[in-house]
Amino acid sequence: MILTVTLNTALDITYRVKALRPHASHRVTDVTERPGGKGLNVARVLAALGHEVTVTGFAGGATGRTLQDQLLGATGISDALVPVSGSTRRTVAVVDSSTGDTTQLNEPGPLVSAEEWTAFQEAYEHLLDSASAVALCGSLPPGVPVGAYATLVRAARTASVPVLLDTSGEPLRRGIAARPDIVKPNADELAELTGSHEPLQAMKDARRRGAHAVVASLGAKGLRALTPDGTWQAPAPDRLEGNPTGAGDSAVAGLLSGYVEHLPWPQRLARAVALSAATVVAPVAGEFDAATYERLVREVRVTDQISAA
Amino acid sequence: MILTVTLNTALDITYRVKALRPHASHRVTDVTERPGGKGLNVARVLAALGHEVTVTGFAGGATGRTLQDQLLGATGISDALVPVSGSTRRTVAVVDSSTGDTTQLNEPGPLVSAEEWTAFQEAYEHLLDSASAVALCGSLPPGVPVGAYATLVRAARTASVPVLLDTSGEPLRRGIAARPDIVKPNADELAELTGSHEPLQAMKDARRRGAHAVVASLGAKGLRALTPDGTWQAPAPDRLEGNPTGAGDSAVAGLLSGYVEHLPWPQRLARAVALSAATVVAPVAGEFDAATYERLVREVRVTDQISAA
Repeated sequence: MILTVTLNTALDITYRVKALRPHASHRVTDVTERPGGKGLNVARVLAALGHEVTVTGFAGGATGRTLQDQLLGATGISDALVPVSGSTRRTVAVVDSSTGDTTQLNEPGPLVSAEEWTAFQEAYEHLLDSASAVALCGSLPPGVPVGAYATLVRAARTASVPVLLDTSGEPLRRGIAARPDIVKPNADELAELTGSHEPLQAMKDARRRGAHAVVASLGAKGLRALTPDGTWQAPAPDRLEGNPTGAGDSAVAGLLSGYVEHLPWPQRLARAVALSAATVVAPVAGEFDAATYERLVREVRVTDQISAA
Repeated sequence: MILTVTLNTALDITYRVKALRPHASHRVTDVTERPGGKGLNVARVLAALGHEVTVTGFAGGATGRTLQDQLLGATGISDALVPVSGSTRRTVAVVDSSTGDTTQLNEPGPLVSAEEWTAFQEAYEHLLDSASAVALCGSLPPGVPVGAYATLVRAARTASVPVLLDTSGEPLRRGIAARPDIVKPNADELAELTGSHEPLQAMKDARRRGAHAVVASLGAKGLRALTPDGTWQAPAPDRLEGNPTGAGDSAVAGLLSGYVEHLPWPQRLARAVALSAATVVAPVAGEFDAATYERLVREVRVTDQISAA
C-alpha cells in the first residue's frame, strides 16, 4: 500500500452564501463537509486511481470522530490515524455565489503532546513495513517539533521506502536536508526555501539542499522536474477555469502513483499535470473529473528540457 | 422546573481573526464553541439565577452529539432534546480583532421529518406535566410546520402551563393567534407582525392578535410592557458598550423567572432590563456579568406609563 501522512488533518467545511459582506449576518444556503488536509486529499486521488492507500496522522475530539466516520465510507482508504487529546481542526471555505470567490478560515489544529508525537512515530514506523511509498504532506499542528519531517524522512529511508515531501517554510527546509526522494514545492515555497525567484535556479538549489528529485508546480506554467534521470517540463493545458483547491495534492498523487508503477518520469509528469488540471475543472473542490483526466493524460506533451523562466 | 424549547438548536462557534478580508485566507487565532439557539441561552441564564431548567427541541448528527456533551457540563440544566436524523446546525461568528465587528454565518438546520415532529410533540406534552412555565424560542428548522408554535402554545394552555413566545415572522404571526401569555418581540419583529413602526400602536395590535402581555425590547430604549395588569416602561441603562448577542434571551429569562417567582410586573421588567444590560457588557457573548446585574437590578427605575415613541 501507499502511505500518506497528514499530521494536521482537518474537517473541511464549505459554506455557500449569496454574497459575503463583512459585519453582516448570512444565511448559509449550502453546507458540505469532508475529511481534509493535504495527505487525505492525496489518498483520495490515489484510491480513485485504484491504489490501496493507508492514511495516518492525528485525529481527536468531535471533529476527529466525524472525520474518521466519513473516512469509513471512502473506498480503498484504510484509516490508521493516531488519537490525540485535542480536537482536529476545522477549515471553513465561504464561497460567495455572486462572484464565485472563496474566503478561507483555518483553525490552528490541536496541541500535540510529546507523548502523542512519540506514539505517532511508533505507529508510522510500523506502517512503513508494508508501504511501497510514503507522502508527507502539509503543515504541522502546534506541539509537533519543526524538524518532524526530517525525522519521518530519515525513518522512511532507513526502511527503504521512497518518500515524497510536500510542505513549506521551516518544516520543508529541515525536511529536505534529510534527503527525501521527491519534493514538490510551488513557486512561493521554492522562493521561500532558496531566496531565488528564478524557478530553475531555485530547483537546482533545492537539489543541493538534499532532495533527489524536485518537481515544482508553477500554476499555469505546469510542472518542471529536476531529477537524477533528467530534466523535464510538462505544460498545463490551456484555458483552465475552475477551483485550484487540491490541484497540488492531485499532482502529488500522480507523481507517487507513477513512481510505484515504475513509470518513466515523463509519464509520471503527464499523469500529475492531467490530474491537477482535472481537479481544477471538477465541480466539487478537491475532486477530479475522470473524463478530463483520461483525455488530458494522452494529450499532455512532456519535453525533456527546461527553458529559462 | 422551567422548560425551554429550542427547535433549531445550534453549535455556536466563535472565530477570532486579525482582520477579515473577503477572498483571502485567514488563520483563526482563537476558537470557542458552546451550545446555542435562543432557548438554550435562556436556559443558561435561568440556571445561573438558580432555577431548575429542562431544555428540549431537536439534536442530531455529530454537532448534536457535541452540543449534548457540552450540555452535560452545564449545572442546573437537564437535557431532554429529542433525536433527529439530520445534523444540528452550526453558527460561525467571525470576530475581526482589528475592529471588534462580527460577521455571522448561520447554517439552515436539519430537515425534520413528520415522524420526528410528532415524536417531539409527545415528548413536549410529557415535559409540560412537570413544568411551571415554558419558553418557546427562535426560528423553526426546515420541515417543521410554520404553525408549530401555535400548536405548542395550545398544548401549554391545555396543560395550564404559562407560555412565553419569542420568535419572528410567520411563526410569530401564527403562534400569537393561539393566545400565549407573553410575547417578547423586538422593534423589527413588531413592525413585521403589525405593519406599524410606532411601538405602542404595534404592541396594542399584538395584544389584539392574541398575546395576553406584550413586552417589546427596543434596544437602547429598554423594555416596554403592555399587560392585563397595566403598562410599564423600563429604560436601558446609559452608556452600554459591548456585544448585544444574547441580550434578548437574557431578557426572556428575566421575565420568565420573575413570572414563576410571582414578582409584580415592575420587578420582572427591572430584572429583564438588568440581565439584558449585564449580558451586553459581559466579555463573553451570551454570558451575563453577575456584578453588573446585581447593581443594575436595584438601579433600574420602571415607570407605569408608556410615553409616545
